[in-house]
Amino acid sequence: MLEEKLKRTELSEMGEFRLIDHLTEDIKIVNKETIKGVGDDAAVIDNGNYVTLVSTDILTEGIHFDLTYTPLKHLGYKAAVVNFSDIAAMNGTPKQITVSIAVSNRFSVEALDEFYDGLKIACKKYNVDLVGGDTTSSLKGLFISITVVGIAKKDDVVYRNTAKANDLICVTGDLGGAFMGLKLLEREKEVFKADPGIQPDLEGYDYIVGRQLKPEARMDIIKIFKDLKVKPTSMIDISDGLASEIMHICKDSDVGCNVYLDKIPIDPTTNNMAVDFNMAATVAALNGGEDYELLFTISQDNYEKIKTVKEITVIGYITEARDNCYLVANDNSLIPIKAQGWNSFPE
Amino acid sequence: MLEEKLKRTELSEMGEFRLIDHLTEDIKIVNKETIKGVGDDAAVIDNGNYVTLVSTDILTEGIHFDLTYTPLKHLGYKAAVVNFSDIAAMNGTPKQITVSIAVSNRFSVEALDEFYDGLKIACKKYNVDLVGGDTTSSLKGLFISITVVGIAKKDDVVYRNTAKANDLICVTGDLGGAFMGLKLLEREKEVFKADPGIQPDLEGYDYIVGRQLKPEARMDIIKIFKDLKVKPTSMIDISDGLASEIMHICKDSDVGCNVYLDKIPIDPTTNNMAVDFNMAATVAALNGGEDYELLFTISQDNYEKIKTVKEITVIGYITEARDNCYLVANDNSLIPIKAQGWNSFPE
Repeated sequence: MLEEKLKRTELSEMGEFRLIDHLTEDIKIVNKETIKGVGDDAAVIDNGNYVTLVSTDILTEGIHFDLTYTPLKHLGYKAAVVNFSDIAAMNGTPKQITVSIAVSNRFSVEALDEFYDGLKIACKKYNVDLVGGDTTSSLKGLFISITVVGIAKKDDVVYRNTAKANDLICVTGDLGGAFMGLKLLEREKEVFKADPGIQPDLEGYDYIVGRQLKPEARMDIIKIFKDLKVKPTSMIDISDGLASEIMHICKDSDVGCNVYLDKIPIDPTTNNMAVDFNMAATVAALNGGEDYELLFTISQDNYEKIKTVKEITVIGYITEARDNCYLVANDNSLIPIKAQGWNSFPE
Repeated sequence: MLEEKLKRTELSEMGEFRLIDHLTEDIKIVNKETIKGVGDDAAVIDNGNYVTLVSTDILTEGIHFDLTYTPLKHLGYKAAVVNFSDIAAMNGTPKQITVSIAVSNRFSVEALDEFYDGLKIACKKYNVDLVGGDTTSSLKGLFISITVVGIAKKDDVVYRNTAKANDLICVTGDLGGAFMGLKLLEREKEVFKADPGIQPDLEGYDYIVGRQLKPEARMDIIKIFKDLKVKPTSMIDISDGLASEIMHICKDSDVGCNVYLDKIPIDPTTNNMAVDFNMAATVAALNGGEDYELLFTISQDNYEKIKTVKEITVIGYITEARDNCYLVANDNSLIPIKAQGWNSFPE
């Protein structure tokens, strides 16, 4: 009997970004209202003077979060906020979310109450309405899918693919903290597993634990842009690490970049923890992810306006060298940036 | 040592509808643009002359679908269409979807291609743009969450909670087919498990198998409403069975209903299959679900306009008897309608 051999490509061979490109490459937009589809932090839909921004994120237990050290209330808060961050990355304002969850019967109603409390606290803080959703069961594990709807004036929307040579590259806040917080939580989990009598030692590390468990969306920066009348030339939020995000901007904008290693803002707690783990804090900043800070470029003309803003750091500049992304080390040597990013499909 | 006893309520004790009510009961809308939040087929967001409609559905393997007999291409098609149906149920037009999936490594890239092919075929047929999403891994099983964005003129939107006494109750197409198709597929799966040499016998049952695997959203009816200048007084799509849906309309509208058992439209194939399973086809229609037909009410003034539309059947009328929903049997006896619906949290 003849058996046709069907091709089987493993998801791990392709990786998350290439998989999304592959699945969506032949999509053609048919509605004139659809200004931007797949390929930015949010889709952009024309409504006349305003645009509607839509973005979605899925979080899966055991992949994106570990309930051993993630309180459900924090998880609800974070699940909402990471979506708000996608709207911030478009220079917009989040307005509504829908929440879909699938849970196994190991969860109680009270556990879901905790999760929803976190969602509601985030919604209240960010003035967002929880407008719908779907709640169902899963055979195993917890799955959360949130879609956020936001709004922006049509001319205010900032995309990823519009950085220009000589623009300054800026980041908000500091980087690497969320990753070092995760490393710490994972270490203490192992200690706890080995001896449940030992309580986790998180003292002095509130900051990085908070960065991991309770991130914030930088709506304050979006307000600063409005107040200072600065419109970034491109923007993305840092969910997968600085390296991966700057490469997104450069690839999509057909430009290159030089990023100064010693300019990358890192909190002292992040540094201390990195020393403990015998790793460079810049690696956490470049490849760690989950900081939900904003990475953006501005025209040099706007430098005077932003230079005194404490929460913004200029870390480099855009070059014409298409797809050539470099770190500039202290000795001025150039190190190519590789997008390690975060691949949810490990081999 | 004192140990506080924490209350634990099982999800199965509450059931899906009560759980959603419970989790969302204290939500207050803060944005003036949010016209309708939780509690209808879609959220309604004000954009000036138009409204944006947003709805979301989550599908989980082993709960909502069984890949033994559901081809991935059909699953993609159905996952998109059931969302389009939610927009139809608001008297709107679907325009964009975002798709989030979590998959385990048992799936290949080619398997996801099949799923996406189904999504794309549905999008093309319904003129909808696939504008975003998230693809990640799961430890086990396939999870699909789709959010649809639609549009409607503000005055055209039809809600669930606006049925009035003496309105006529109508349904589109026929009911119970999707459920009988499922029963057939499940039976043939058992036969196959017992003896893999036996091929499934679906002959003569294309119609009900199609109803289960490849449902359609009734956009044709939305067009008929426009053409005939009929605006239903309330509407919902039949995802959980006629009984559950009419009770939603009556409860939310603070009215009752009489539905004539012998008026419920049922296809002969559905009837034949029901006989095979020794059950009443009306039970499949009332409690089966997944037909994705529209259930709506119209003012009696509009009866002349719709009476010759082949795809619309008048099945009863709305009464003032708040929350009293009855089936009228052939002998004119009244049988209270109980919402068995479909609970994804079985005990």
